[in-house]
This record gives sequence, structure tokens and C-alpha cells, in this order.
Amino acid sequence: MRMIFGVNPVMEAIKARPEEIDRILVSETRDDRTASELLRAAKARDIEVRKVPSPELDRLAGKLRHQGVAAVLSGEFRYSEVPDLVEAWKATGKQAFFLILDSIQDPQNLGSLIRTASAAGVQGVIIPRDRASEITPAVVKSSAGATEHMLVAREVNLVRAIEQLKEENVWVGGVEAGSKENIYSTDLDRNLALVIGSEGKGIRRLVRESCDFMVSIPMEGKLNSLNAAQAGAVAMFEARRQRSGGK
Amino acid sequence: MRMIFGVNPVMEAIKARPEEIDRILVSETRDDRTASELLRAAKARDIEVRKVPSPELDRLAGKLRHQGVAAVLSGEFRYSEVPDLVEAWKATGKQAFFLILDSIQDPQNLGSLIRTASAAGVQGVIIPRDRASEITPAVVKSSAGATEHMLVAREVNLVRAIEQLKEENVWVGGVEAGSKENIYSTDLDRNLALVIGSEGKGIRRLVRESCDFMVSIPMEGKLNSLNAAQAGAVAMFEARRQRSGGK
Repeated sequence: MRMIFGVNPVMEAIKARPEEIDRILVSETRDDRTASELLRAAKARDIEVRKVPSPELDRLAGKLRHQGVAAVLSGEFRYSEVPDLVEAWKATGKQAFFLILDSIQDPQNLGSLIRTASAAGVQGVIIPRDRASEITPAVVKSSAGATEHMLVAREVNLVRAIEQLKEENVWVGGVEAGSKENIYSTDLDRNLALVIGSEGKGIRRLVRESCDFMVSIPMEGKLNSLNAAQAGAVAMFEARRQRSGGK
Repeated sequence: MRMIFGVNPVMEAIKARPEEIDRILVSETRDDRTASELLRAAKARDIEVRKVPSPELDRLAGKLRHQGVAAVLSGEFRYSEVPDLVEAWKATGKQAFFLILDSIQDPQNLGSLIRTASAAGVQGVIIPRDRASEITPAVVKSSAGATEHMLVAREVNLVRAIEQLKEENVWVGGVEAGSKENIYSTDLDRNLALVIGSEGKGIRRLVRESCDFMVSIPMEGKLNSLNAAQAGAVAMFEARRQRSGGK
């Protein structure tokens, strides 16, 4: 069993995985248009909805903001495997676009990166199994529900996952400050997997050595750094821009 | 008096505003190269450094991560005025690049946006005085110290601030989902102020009506949204890309 909280995540779950939802919990004090939309969407899919006292939701959500809405899902987050990601890409008929995260530990950054990936057209995300955040309720929340649509593979060995992508003719590019190649002068309009490192440690050596190319995001100013979520957003949207002919 | 926490924020404060630092607090248990660098930088500027028990820092920092380091600064955060921002821009000899935030309430988003602004070459940030986060210790922390370098004006009336910029021949562009103009087809290589709205409410009507143009960031996928910090990162770096000839 797992729970997700907040209007967007619950609505996305109702749309994407209704068969996994045991029930929806709505605060007794929530009685507005958004709540009625959720109720209607749930009823249309025969999902049970229970009114609960707001303190009950507070307790279940812990530190997470629940906005008066939660969903109880059966089973854990369903991770995919790299071949599932490849299959999903090929079904789109487009060029590959994957995101490899090495090794994001902050759930908010991970959620944010998955949300951005969804908006940028990424077909699947690969995260490591160890020393990295998994898909927790906090990640679901900060992804605004994007985790409900995105394929996420959790791999023991990122280098092996990269080799699997290379065998499918995917180019793997690491984004790291200090790399000589400029991301804007690099051709990202091809079958692509972008690797983003964690803020503290960057991309691990063996993962970096598996990359086909390394690029940096040129910056101004005295500090000259972005956090992983911001760097990822800039890099993914530069790839999206190039892949749609600069538009 | 105000405090800032964490290695990067404290180091940036030592460099940028040594005269405002009352003293540095370092955890007794912190005894590594980073700590010695901080101590050296502080001593070179005649700043007092005190070793304190780590639980003392925990108490002072509350929920913030302190990494064993804090600085006690005299006075509150020193906000600038719009004319200060204009002066700072003109001193650079470059085209204007400002960021107007309407009305970011989440301190982490605000800190992240200021950090990104610094890396993108923004010369000053304008935030509203009401219903928005001010520069709190949490903002300083999530900006990784960028608040110590960035000019931030806090204005009662954003529309008036926009008028002031327009009088200086600055073009004001709002970034909002659904706007017809595509950010990539819009000329951002000019004296520019970008307006980013809050996630929940977007850009307020009167502020929107003061903008010279509105642009959207084209997206893919089912969710089709970015949070304010991500949208800001993509927009500011697109402006930076255009302004440096696509590099």
C-alpha cells in the first residue's frame, strides 16, 4: 500500500492508474469545485471516496501538504526496466529521450526533475537503486503527479543501463559544470539520454566514463552554479528546443 | 540581526559583505578542509570565529541544514530600490536583464530562482512587499548564498516598478503557460525584464497588463506544467543563450 497526497497527484493517479486506487480520502472541510471534480472523476471510474476529518489527513500526510485530498493505492510504486523504457520510446515513433539521474538524494529535487522531464517530453527516467532517493510520497507530491505517468527504472548498475541504451543507438550525454563542450553547440537532436549528477558529488567517475559526450551549461556571475533540478530543467528544455526545430 | 547557515552561504557572505558579519559560528565537530578555508577567509578579514557545540547550531538553525557553519550578521537583509538596480545594470555596460517575481510564496522556490538568476547573469530581482516570501534565512540557504550578491528590490507596487523600468527602455515580458508567443521565437536579446508568476495564481492581471509581451515555454506531455522555479530557469537561460549569440 502507498499513499499520495494533493489535488494534482491524486487527479493524475485517477486518470493514469484507476485500477490501482483502493480509495480516495477527502477532507470533510473540503467542499469546492476542485473537490467535486475529483469526486466526479473518481465516481466515473467506480473508485470509492471517503470523507475523513481533516486531522486524520494531517496525520497520514506527516510533513506533506495534502490540500484535503489523498489516494490510497494498492502495491508499491511500479518501477519499470530499461527494456520497458526502450519499448515505450519506440512506440512513440520519435527519437529517444531519456533522463538518467546519478544520484539525486533530495526527494524534492527528484520530484521536480521528473515533473520537468514529463513537460520536456522525456520517455523514461533511470535512477540508481542505492544512495539515491526512491519514489516516495514526497517525490510524488513534488512531481505534481508526474510520477503517475512517467516510466521510472531503478537500476543497481547505471553503467550497465547506459550500455543497454547504447546498444539501442542512444547517445548518452552527461551534463556537468566545467565540461568543455557547450550544450548549445552540441547536437541533441538525436536518440538521446541526458545524465544529471547530484549537486554535491556530480556524476560518478564510472558513469561519466560511460558517457558518449559531456557538456556544460554556460553561466554568468560570481557563483556559477545551479542545483541539480535547475540544471536538469535547462538541459532538458534545450534538448526539447533543438528537437523541435528551435521552437 | 540575522543569521545565515551552510558552507556556501557563509563563504559568499564573507566575500561579499564582510563588514556586516558580526561573527562566524563553527561546530566543534567540524574540522576539515572546508572548515579551515572558511576560518582562513574569516581571519583574513578580521571576522571573529567561535567554536560552538553542534546542538547549539541545530537549535539556531531550526529546520535549516547548517553543515556545521553559521554567520551572525548585523542588521536585516538590505533591500535595494529599482533605481539601484538600474544603476547596477548601467555599470555593467551590458543590456539590462532583470527578474520580476509575482508573487512567489515558497522560500525554496524564491531561493532557487535567485540562485538561477545569478548564474544566468541577471542584474537585479524585484519582488512584491505583500503576499510573497521575503528574503528569510531559508531563502538565503536555498539560494546557496546567491542572495549575498544579488540586488533585490522589494516593491509595494510591481506595476509602478515595471513603469520605472519601461522609462529606462527596458522591455518587460511575462512568462505564462498558454501565451501564444513562443519564447524561442521571441527576441530576448534586448534590455529585458522577465516576469515569472507564482505557481498557483500565475501573474496578476494588472501586472500582466503592464507587460510589453507575454510568452510561453512550449511543452510536451500530459501534465504540461512546470513549477515557478523550473519555468524561471528555462526562461532565464533561454534569454542568456540568445544574448550570447546562441552559445
